[in-house]
Amino acid sequence: MKTYQEMNAAELAQERAEVQAHYQRLKDLNLKLDMSRGKPGKDQLDAISDILTVLTDPADCICEGMDVRNYGNMEGVPAARRLMSELLGCRPEECIMGGSSSLALMYGLVMRGYCFGMTHSPVPWSRVEGRKWICPTPGYDRHFKITEVFGFEMITVPMLPTGPDMDRVEELVKDPLVKGIWCVPKYSNPDGIVYSQETVERFAKLEPAAPDFTVIWDNAYCVHEFDGDYLPFPDIIGLCREAGHPDLVYEFCSTSKITFPGAGISAMCSSEANLNYQRKLLGVQMISYDKVNQLRQVKFLKNKENTLAVMKKHAAILKPRFDCVLHWLETEIAPRGLGHWQTPKGGYFVSLYTLPGLAKRTVALCKEAGVVLTDAGATYPLGKDPQDSNIRIAPSLPPVRELEAAMEVLCTALEMAALEQMG
Amino acid sequence: MKTYQEMNAAELAQERAEVQAHYQRLKDLNLKLDMSRGKPGKDQLDAISDILTVLTDPADCICEGMDVRNYGNMEGVPAARRLMSELLGCRPEECIMGGSSSLALMYGLVMRGYCFGMTHSPVPWSRVEGRKWICPTPGYDRHFKITEVFGFEMITVPMLPTGPDMDRVEELVKDPLVKGIWCVPKYSNPDGIVYSQETVERFAKLEPAAPDFTVIWDNAYCVHEFDGDYLPFPDIIGLCREAGHPDLVYEFCSTSKITFPGAGISAMCSSEANLNYQRKLLGVQMISYDKVNQLRQVKFLKNKENTLAVMKKHAAILKPRFDCVLHWLETEIAPRGLGHWQTPKGGYFVSLYTLPGLAKRTVALCKEAGVVLTDAGATYPLGKDPQDSNIRIAPSLPPVRELEAAMEVLCTALEMAALEQMG
Repeated sequence: MKTYQEMNAAELAQERAEVQAHYQRLKDLNLKLDMSRGKPGKDQLDAISDILTVLTDPADCICEGMDVRNYGNMEGVPAARRLMSELLGCRPEECIMGGSSSLALMYGLVMRGYCFGMTHSPVPWSRVEGRKWICPTPGYDRHFKITEVFGFEMITVPMLPTGPDMDRVEELVKDPLVKGIWCVPKYSNPDGIVYSQETVERFAKLEPAAPDFTVIWDNAYCVHEFDGDYLPFPDIIGLCREAGHPDLVYEFCSTSKITFPGAGISAMCSSEANLNYQRKLLGVQMISYDKVNQLRQVKFLKNKENTLAVMKKHAAILKPRFDCVLHWLETEIAPRGLGHWQTPKGGYFVSLYTLPGLAKRTVALCKEAGVVLTDAGATYPLGKDPQDSNIRIAPSLPPVRELEAAMEVLCTALEMAALEQMG
Repeated sequence: MKTYQEMNAAELAQERAEVQAHYQRLKDLNLKLDMSRGKPGKDQLDAISDILTVLTDPADCICEGMDVRNYGNMEGVPAARRLMSELLGCRPEECIMGGSSSLALMYGLVMRGYCFGMTHSPVPWSRVEGRKWICPTPGYDRHFKITEVFGFEMITVPMLPTGPDMDRVEELVKDPLVKGIWCVPKYSNPDGIVYSQETVERFAKLEPAAPDFTVIWDNAYCVHEFDGDYLPFPDIIGLCREAGHPDLVYEFCSTSKITFPGAGISAMCSSEANLNYQRKLLGVQMISYDKVNQLRQVKFLKNKENTLAVMKKHAAILKPRFDCVLHWLETEIAPRGLGHWQTPKGGYFVSLYTLPGLAKRTVALCKEAGVVLTDAGATYPLGKDPQDSNIRIAPSLPPVRELEAAMEVLCTALEMAALEQMG
């Protein structure tokens, strides 16, 4: 097959007629499909139903002498701290438990930095005129929104196949106004890139000018392989400790995509000095998080080995969905030269880079045909993709049959957008 | 029995010898008892064990078409909104659900006012130099701590048997720097006072100078009678709406002392305009609260009628504990003229007012004898009780047998403190 660039006028005209007719046929199907968010599908939720019955008796609610049904113990159930630290490779005492949302924990961290300052802040971030935050792009829209509302100028840094461009990062942190960076180190959102060992080590060795520079290490997909075995990943907390920068990083994770999305448990990990500081501020915020649910998750997941077995069940459900997306891209988009993408082995997304200037129009055409995608641009700060190229595909929610239809729409929409652009 | 004031020197000397010997005997028992916090006891937790088994099957997790196991629906499960609004008397659309902590919801509200401003704020509260907050005293230490950390000057207003002194409140709100007030309208913490109908109506009719003045109506004990039947209570949201001040108040409640403390669900209620504004800000904070737990609570509590039946079980457990406390106060403290108190019919506390200058010493003597009370002064902003008089007694946690011992210690300690003070 020729790429559109290689086609002559007559060939393009014929392609245009075919694509338009194809798009119209798809529109006539009145589809209503959603590939916008990394929501697990019903089969994934059903796969972990046993968690509903691990706590049924009052006696089940006592864990190592702690009655999880009562107030208290802000830092969480010790067994939960051990489980989460085992998943991440850090120490249990470097891990405190949160509620059902790791995003809320991250928001809370930035909020407290803004209102009260971090462990080593000379002043709260709210009082730093011209404060800045590094945003590797494309990235997670909800991360960017947090630093947006707290008034940070967001400096983008490109994602390389090894992670964020560390030359740029090391340069940027020389500015004391630069207060932090967003990272999704394993199966990055949306590219599915795994930071290389070298990248992780360069993070641990960062020497920022700001004493309160904060690496937010959102390890959202720490055990979330859907293709192949669990990939061991370095423990950033330990590396920072060894590098003499113990207070540089806060790591986050949750069981949202291990058990129930939005009804799991989350954790915040950092040096003990940082956690002691945060605990004091958190103590004003609340008495304790939901320890009953913490114990429920522990009783169901048990340990890392069993958690990885649970993740294999999720993988078996997710893999065919990703295969479907990639198959459509490889057979429809690659031959026409309309875009490129990474091939992820974990995480929840496929990140499609169209030829420049096509993303917004493609997403709009999909919407017209009943297929909802993440807004074009959402993977960039302020929703502004300078190339208008990146589209985040979230294939986890629809069954494969629906995905087939949705991907047919997406590919046809991209072809239409490209042909329109060629005039 | 004579009061200490009526005793002559010889009588006082004898009393002193007896009290000191009594205190020493109690100390020798090496007690370890806790009356510091409003934590339900184990029997209360056991009484609601059925909540552990209301969701056991995937099909149980679908409610009116919503799969509560997945992300989404920030405002919560509709059935939970209906239940909470039924308990409070407001409309379901005036109620959005939170996580396991209503304190965290209140903190979040003040935090967003500080960082971003309220619905009608000219500027965020952080930018208001000399901002003030009204604190009816004695009150809840965790409330005061929130306005303390966000830099409000806290203006105290005395609690009357009808609620806060509304003449003072109406005067204070004429100052545009006064941005809000803490209220626990039913069975106030710690006095157990129920605001009168007139007080509630005067709140609804308040005309504060600040357009963003906020009444925080923490209805923590809305169905928490332990003595007698449920006491109907006016709906502040509706009264504010009718008075033409729909955006004046935010009401909070939780099931923490209905089901599991710290593992229940919470709600924030206000006008639709306020909730729309808050929802936008909350959407940056998180995707959704734990809807599985919301549904669990709804399936267990069902409706207001059944919730009141559950509360009767709690009342049967709590009543003997409060009777024990009151009996000791009436037989040991009243005759000696050493203090006074309200006799609450709901809530979690007995608020003892000692003669001036005795609270700190009494609490210290209790601690020495192994009985932990809430710190003296904690019920006042910055922990400063100007009279050094108020002691908050929380009788819910210890079994009656232990309470008997703890109250014997408390009464003896107060007697000792009084005798010491008399020199």
